[in-house]
Amino acid sequence: MEIKIVKKVLAAHEKLADEIRELLARKGVYAFNLIGAPGAGKTLLLESTFDAAAADIRPGVVEGDIATTADAERLQRFGVPIVQINTGPFGGDCHLAPNLIRAALDELPLDDVDAVFIENVGNLVCPAEFYVGENEKVVVLSVTEGEDKPLKYPLAFREAAAAVITKIDLLPHLDVDEAALRENVAAVNPKLAVFALSARTGEGLAAWVDYVKSKVAGG
Amino acid sequence: MEIKIVKKVLAAHEKLADEIRELLARKGVYAFNLIGAPGAGKTLLLESTFDAAAADIRPGVVEGDIATTADAERLQRFGVPIVQINTGPFGGDCHLAPNLIRAALDELPLDDVDAVFIENVGNLVCPAEFYVGENEKVVVLSVTEGEDKPLKYPLAFREAAAAVITKIDLLPHLDVDEAALRENVAAVNPKLAVFALSARTGEGLAAWVDYVKSKVAGG
Repeated sequence: MEIKIVKKVLAAHEKLADEIRELLARKGVYAFNLIGAPGAGKTLLLESTFDAAAADIRPGVVEGDIATTADAERLQRFGVPIVQINTGPFGGDCHLAPNLIRAALDELPLDDVDAVFIENVGNLVCPAEFYVGENEKVVVLSVTEGEDKPLKYPLAFREAAAAVITKIDLLPHLDVDEAALRENVAAVNPKLAVFALSARTGEGLAAWVDYVKSKVAGG
Repeated sequence: MEIKIVKKVLAAHEKLADEIRELLARKGVYAFNLIGAPGAGKTLLLESTFDAAAADIRPGVVEGDIATTADAERLQRFGVPIVQINTGPFGGDCHLAPNLIRAALDELPLDDVDAVFIENVGNLVCPAEFYVGENEKVVVLSVTEGEDKPLKYPLAFREAAAAVITKIDLLPHLDVDEAALRENVAAVNPKLAVFALSARTGEGLAAWVDYVKSKVAGG
């Protein structure tokens, strides 16, 4: 009996995620699902990406947080459509589920955007377990988190198509070895497209932005 | 029917957590449950605490990770009893549940320790939702995560008795305002004991170690 109930919920989620994928494909929209720990730099990565790619992509944003609209407010200056999901009223959920994404997409003008950036709840664990209809997951990891994180949280790195290593401007002040971090990323998922950048200095940003543009153009 | 099943699981968890609390009380052991994001500095905080308090407390450790024994290995040099829990075989659980803690405590020589440090899975969300029989939760937050995190992840700060702000040696290299961070911590939970420290330079460590010693002595 228990198993039946769990299966029903999971099946409903998967069906909804498939419908989201079909909706996005029909609208010609490419969806990135950004996952990473609190403070990994997901919002700043979006800000830098929008600054650099303003002429080339028409983004829409789904912001996921347990509480506050702080991240959505940071992105308002770009004048792009943003929907904030607060999971607080839904039990403080640690991830975005397809039903929330579906509701958020209803609020986005999908005919006027060609890329949707879903910024998931800050959590390197749970969001990796949920497919919400995105074209790809992007795992965001700050160098300040240490080089061992891909080994300790492997699912996020296995599920993602790209990894963005952030805050590399802090490397001179840390006891963190970037080469070892990259080795650990590759050990968990050798197929990952890996970018290392500092949104603050701009170092390494161009390669990531080119990647985004190519995905949006082909999607 | 569904509600009945969920209630049963929760009730079983709570009963087990209460049993753990009673066991620890009987043995005169004080238990800290450390929660925080990946890379917040939980393991290094334990290393610094053990270095500073070696003569005053007899610690035992329960290390929680999805995968690897990396953190347990870092603590081996202290010669203290350590039990590693890997949640990978249990569905990659994003937190430590009471049944895992109960099994871990069976492996610790509780007659020879007076403090148990539970290092939870790196996650600022889910571990805050589970009482595992600890005397207090300690939320660990790195300054690199930004000053807004208490507002965005309020449950961890509401459930904890103490907050440890780590990596303050990096403040000169960040656009993060420590005063604003402290204000946000206090806004969520004005009763929190707040410590700010750098395990690397030792700044601020003594106050935290004194706090630990006083809790262990009184517990």
